[in-house]
Amino acid sequence: MEHLVNHGENPIDGVVLQTLKVIEDERGAVMHMLRADSPLFNRFGEIYFSEVKLGIVKAWKRHRRMTQHFAVPTGRIRFALYDDRNGSPTQGNLSEIELGRPDAYRLLIIPPGVWYGFMGLADRPSVVANCADLPHDPHESENCEPDSALIPYDWNRRG
Amino acid sequence: MEHLVNHGENPIDGVVLQTLKVIEDERGAVMHMLRADSPLFNRFGEIYFSEVKLGIVKAWKRHRRMTQHFAVPTGRIRFALYDDRNGSPTQGNLSEIELGRPDAYRLLIIPPGVWYGFMGLADRPSVVANCADLPHDPHESENCEPDSALIPYDWNRRG
Repeated sequence: MEHLVNHGENPIDGVVLQTLKVIEDERGAVMHMLRADSPLFNRFGEIYFSEVKLGIVKAWKRHRRMTQHFAVPTGRIRFALYDDRNGSPTQGNLSEIELGRPDAYRLLIIPPGVWYGFMGLADRPSVVANCADLPHDPHESENCEPDSALIPYDWNRRG
Repeated sequence: MEHLVNHGENPIDGVVLQTLKVIEDERGAVMHMLRADSPLFNRFGEIYFSEVKLGIVKAWKRHRRMTQHFAVPTGRIRFALYDDRNGSPTQGNLSEIELGRPDAYRLLIIPPGVWYGFMGLADRPSVVANCADLPHDPHESENCEPDSALIPYDWNRRG
């Protein structure tokens, strides 16, 4: 799947970044996210939204079985990803990816096992949409604190 | 399906309005939309977003086969619906439904054959998310102008 689209700056195996279409309209734009007939679509589990305020971090989380499909229809968000999967060809890699219009309206797919978190970059709350391939199940994910020593990433390094 | 949830002010047969959960959080809220294991879920076709600016109308549209599942994660939107389906027990009815937080974060399901349109009510562009049960197909929908004489509704009556 990772060969279908341009990875851009993303060096983590199995992570996919796909540019999405925005149909501009003076009344308000239409923004694509995911279709059932896309080669990137697997299975529908749940669609939900998570807001994040300016400078606020929601991190870290990783899933055992669920694949995330993220897009940002409102505002701008920086995602950070960390691969500590045993056997992964990119184990130990960190990745930063921004999502938001007009230049970065994209679909970000994060496979199970990859740590991720995100920070709001817009003045008003940003909204990330997640079209996950499983419904939410608190037993299939793990969390750790944003400043955990397990993950060599500093959320405040630009602040 | 229409017996599962509270219709509220909605008098159009087959239209469903379901209150959705918002998990408040000082970092930014999490907002539910639709899960594959919901009794209201049918089939995943496409998830996309449509922005609408303050006072702007996007109308009218009806689909031959597609069912719409709308939620409004950003801003506030007024939907208007019109039932001119032959044989419908509510043929001739109009319905107005507002979606938006904090008091009206809800899932609005519109079956095929019902005319719908919407207007932005928030200062900044509002965003409607649609989790449709078919991928977009320009051949299965019809449009008419917001002020069409076919539909006895005045978008500006409150303006």
